[in-house]
Amino acid sequence: MIQSRTHNCGQLRISEAGEKVTLVGFYDNMRKVSRNLGFLILRDFYGVTQIVIETEEMMAKLNGVNNESTLSITGIVRERSSKNASLPTGEIEVVPEEIKVLGKCIYNELPFEINRSKEADEATRLKYRYLDLRNPEVKSRIVLRSKIVSELRSRMTEHDFLEITTPILTCSSPEGARDYLVPSRNHPGKFYALPQAPQQFKQLLMTSGFDRYFQIAPCFRDEDARADRSPGEFYQLDMEMAFATQEDVFSVIEDVLPPVFAKYGTYKTASKAPFKRISYKDAMERYGSDKPDLRIDLELQDVTDVMADCGFGPFEGQKIKAIVVDDFTATRKVIDKICADVEVQSGNKAYWFKVDESGELAGGIAKFLQDRKEKVMEALSLKPGDFVGLTAGKLLDAQKTAGVLRKFLGIASEKHRKTDCYEFCWIVDFPMYEIGEESGELEFCHNPFSMPQGGMEALMTKDPLDIYAYQYDLVCNGVELSSGAVRNHDPEIMVKAFQIVGLDEEHVKAKFPAMYNAFCYGAPPHAGIAPGVDRMVMLIAGEESIREIIPFPMNKTAQDVMMGAPSEVDEKQLRDVHIKIDIPEKEV
Amino acid sequence: MIQSRTHNCGQLRISEAGEKVTLVGFYDNMRKVSRNLGFLILRDFYGVTQIVIETEEMMAKLNGVNNESTLSITGIVRERSSKNASLPTGEIEVVPEEIKVLGKCIYNELPFEINRSKEADEATRLKYRYLDLRNPEVKSRIVLRSKIVSELRSRMTEHDFLEITTPILTCSSPEGARDYLVPSRNHPGKFYALPQAPQQFKQLLMTSGFDRYFQIAPCFRDEDARADRSPGEFYQLDMEMAFATQEDVFSVIEDVLPPVFAKYGTYKTASKAPFKRISYKDAMERYGSDKPDLRIDLELQDVTDVMADCGFGPFEGQKIKAIVVDDFTATRKVIDKICADVEVQSGNKAYWFKVDESGELAGGIAKFLQDRKEKVMEALSLKPGDFVGLTAGKLLDAQKTAGVLRKFLGIASEKHRKTDCYEFCWIVDFPMYEIGEESGELEFCHNPFSMPQGGMEALMTKDPLDIYAYQYDLVCNGVELSSGAVRNHDPEIMVKAFQIVGLDEEHVKAKFPAMYNAFCYGAPPHAGIAPGVDRMVMLIAGEESIREIIPFPMNKTAQDVMMGAPSEVDEKQLRDVHIKIDIPEKEV
Repeated sequence: MIQSRTHNCGQLRISEAGEKVTLVGFYDNMRKVSRNLGFLILRDFYGVTQIVIETEEMMAKLNGVNNESTLSITGIVRERSSKNASLPTGEIEVVPEEIKVLGKCIYNELPFEINRSKEADEATRLKYRYLDLRNPEVKSRIVLRSKIVSELRSRMTEHDFLEITTPILTCSSPEGARDYLVPSRNHPGKFYALPQAPQQFKQLLMTSGFDRYFQIAPCFRDEDARADRSPGEFYQLDMEMAFATQEDVFSVIEDVLPPVFAKYGTYKTASKAPFKRISYKDAMERYGSDKPDLRIDLELQDVTDVMADCGFGPFEGQKIKAIVVDDFTATRKVIDKICADVEVQSGNKAYWFKVDESGELAGGIAKFLQDRKEKVMEALSLKPGDFVGLTAGKLLDAQKTAGVLRKFLGIASEKHRKTDCYEFCWIVDFPMYEIGEESGELEFCHNPFSMPQGGMEALMTKDPLDIYAYQYDLVCNGVELSSGAVRNHDPEIMVKAFQIVGLDEEHVKAKFPAMYNAFCYGAPPHAGIAPGVDRMVMLIAGEESIREIIPFPMNKTAQDVMMGAPSEVDEKQLRDVHIKIDIPEKEV
Repeated sequence: MIQSRTHNCGQLRISEAGEKVTLVGFYDNMRKVSRNLGFLILRDFYGVTQIVIETEEMMAKLNGVNNESTLSITGIVRERSSKNASLPTGEIEVVPEEIKVLGKCIYNELPFEINRSKEADEATRLKYRYLDLRNPEVKSRIVLRSKIVSELRSRMTEHDFLEITTPILTCSSPEGARDYLVPSRNHPGKFYALPQAPQQFKQLLMTSGFDRYFQIAPCFRDEDARADRSPGEFYQLDMEMAFATQEDVFSVIEDVLPPVFAKYGTYKTASKAPFKRISYKDAMERYGSDKPDLRIDLELQDVTDVMADCGFGPFEGQKIKAIVVDDFTATRKVIDKICADVEVQSGNKAYWFKVDESGELAGGIAKFLQDRKEKVMEALSLKPGDFVGLTAGKLLDAQKTAGVLRKFLGIASEKHRKTDCYEFCWIVDFPMYEIGEESGELEFCHNPFSMPQGGMEALMTKDPLDIYAYQYDLVCNGVELSSGAVRNHDPEIMVKAFQIVGLDEEHVKAKFPAMYNAFCYGAPPHAGIAPGVDRMVMLIAGEESIREIIPFPMNKTAQDVMMGAPSEVDEKQLRDVHIKIDIPEKEV
């Protein structure tokens, strides 16, 4: 039986001096001064404490004991002569009377130094994730994630939302990403699928008469990894409200999220309710993006009228967008780098000129504008020291390229970018329909199951391209956290919405039969959203890699190299579920 | 845009009389008194409110509107002339000025009457689960489950446990039940498996230096359904503690669970800490079960010495167990029924006799005992009115049969059975090894990865059959809620423990390579448990069927008949993950 600790390794203070204590933890390291003097650091989940070895007898107990072994140490707390103010326990040390090894580390060398595990290559870190996580800095991300999720839960509960767990073994869905399949044993030839999101179940809960639902919901999409997307599973703060409008959803989110960001975030302030609402059209026009980073105060202006015919080839017959940055002091080298980065990221070129100290247009494409200098100066209200970035193309291309340019200009200009806050906004009024780029036909713009603004009347009377959907995106610091919508809960409106793009009732039913059937039995209007937990935690933690905020992440090719997943399985396991492996020759 | 409610349907009181309100909800029913008088019940998640229709105009608005449609009703709150004290809103009614249909129920007839859905056959209930759940009684179970889980979470958090989510796509495990497999797209011929429990991950978290972990963990086992086991997925309150003993785990559970049972349970009292600890051996000896229902105060006694040679054939050469019930007034018919039930459930017969009013042995096998009446009376301290139930067989058979008999005698005897409380206990000191019934060889008794009591020394010096494991079961009212253990965190002790049953180090490594590897890098002693959430909710709710406490349960053959899972999938989906269906001719 192990000896229980009296204190943890982060707990002892000068007030405990003289007490006999027992600490347990990992043998972090020892600075050995002589044969009978050494300073051992004992580390547990809560902190570190210095153990001073002063006798040959105690030193002998550590003979052959490798770092990272777990120890139980009983001894007397003593005030330190040389205190360490940077350490919570830095005023004291423990003089051991008894040292026991609880769990041996049999290796003298580790795959990496625990406290510098972040410098190791990722494959090694993932293979030895249980050592990587011993690094307090790495561990702190997982603790943070847990605290954030717990706080989100309690805030949702305070808002009278009920957490309801929906099935993980469900059925394959005809839309969206690729499903993970699970062959059925009882039903040969049939398959479960893991849910891409609990979308249908939450709408069925509304139809079942639940009022405010939420769930920290595991979601599964068999997609390739990205920096902000782990392959396999991810989590959403999924929520849905009955008899609710878009504004009802907004007010819950505006009350639930910002305090969590402000409390745990690397930045200590977050937007307060109400968040800015920006129509999709305005967002594209002013920010060149439907997920604008509002920490940057730069906006796009249209200069097509002033510049299209200036004789600069790429502008001819195109829409032209300008971004004015005052007091822009970047060097020519930085400007060239920005233009190069914009081209890499957007596939389109960016252009520029400056207004120099004496008020002359200079640099970049300035020479093409000299003949209309006054008009340009007036249109953009320019003054000496101003920098003007430019993009050109078809409307959407010019906007999107300018959106990318805006981001890089913001990063390069301290004056125009706040770095200490979370700026939330809502993007609203997404069009219901669009002309498909490939098909040239009328298509749904986003989610066909969102409620059209104006309902049936709008569908009957308006030009489809003028109809907006009750659909919205939640954006924070340029990151899209979620889409949401007021759902179309009315089968008649649903059928009409599909008719407009040339699809019939059978098509609607075939997509989501359970939901369609349920809606025919009377459904409340309902609306919801599902902010991504992983993305929120990344933003709050200030981490760029999603693998830093997941306890046991898969690697980029969807392997858990620590556990050895995926793995080969027995023939019998395959027979039990009525499948066999089918790899064409060339793949073997 | 819908009109937002001002109140919910469970909220209005006499104090709101005279106010103009808007309610939204489901059209529960209408009692139509005349052409222009009717009493409509509007139902939402929170309750019901009576709407009194007093004009032909309002009545007309409900023309052709089916029950279960959703409505928005704006009107004036009025004190009722005939109040309904059993209803929270029973003092008032609402006189509508405006009625809008928000969601039409297009059917005049429903598959079942909402408020009597529990009487419908299960297949219909599951298919129309969204209607079944509109029944307030059915819904209340799901609400209860949500509240229990939320309370468990906050109590664990108060005890400084961190909720950490472990992977759902992981690898197939060589032990335990059948895995659900998920074919990998990126790694042809390989498979993920859904976790049967997060056992390995939580032990890896301990090895990673986390201190107190918990998780409301989804677990997946491809096993057939039972009354208390849903096929597919189920949930555990999974927990693990570093540097902890068995008693540390007990004290957390003893503090976390009983208040939740007492707060939400059908019974309002629950055991307080410390729960009774009963060794496995004692449990079998005294209760004939390793999951005794301690609400029943009856205990087994051994009467082998007194009765084996009484001449009653079935007793000859067997162990004989007796249960004495005083003031047992059941009729002969009831006694026969009990004996029959015991035989059905245990496969073995039960016997009995009574001590009649005049102190004579009577009934059952009394005639075989007349020659030793005094010895029998003395051995069992019998008095007039006592009933004695008997079982016989090899030790374990006699015990187990008596355990079943004890349960039925308890149910039949009010005096000996409390019906208003949750009685918890711990079963401890499980043997580490046993002689396998089939093999005749030394085998692990339960979990080979539990720590043997006495550690390495015990393994080196004791008769294996005398070694106990630090393994324990949590039992409540005769239901096993969980097994738990102090884990074997020491690879040397692990290897030795396996050697004793003739298995070598390679065998240990092959079972759980990640965990074995991790333990070689120094691990803290750790212990944990994982009470089943579904079983706890069933006990608290007093429900016999697990499907009543799951929002969207599968049926007994692992189908979700509402969603149509499992289902057929496209050829392309199978090709993507490199498998094909393989059904032998006879199965097709």
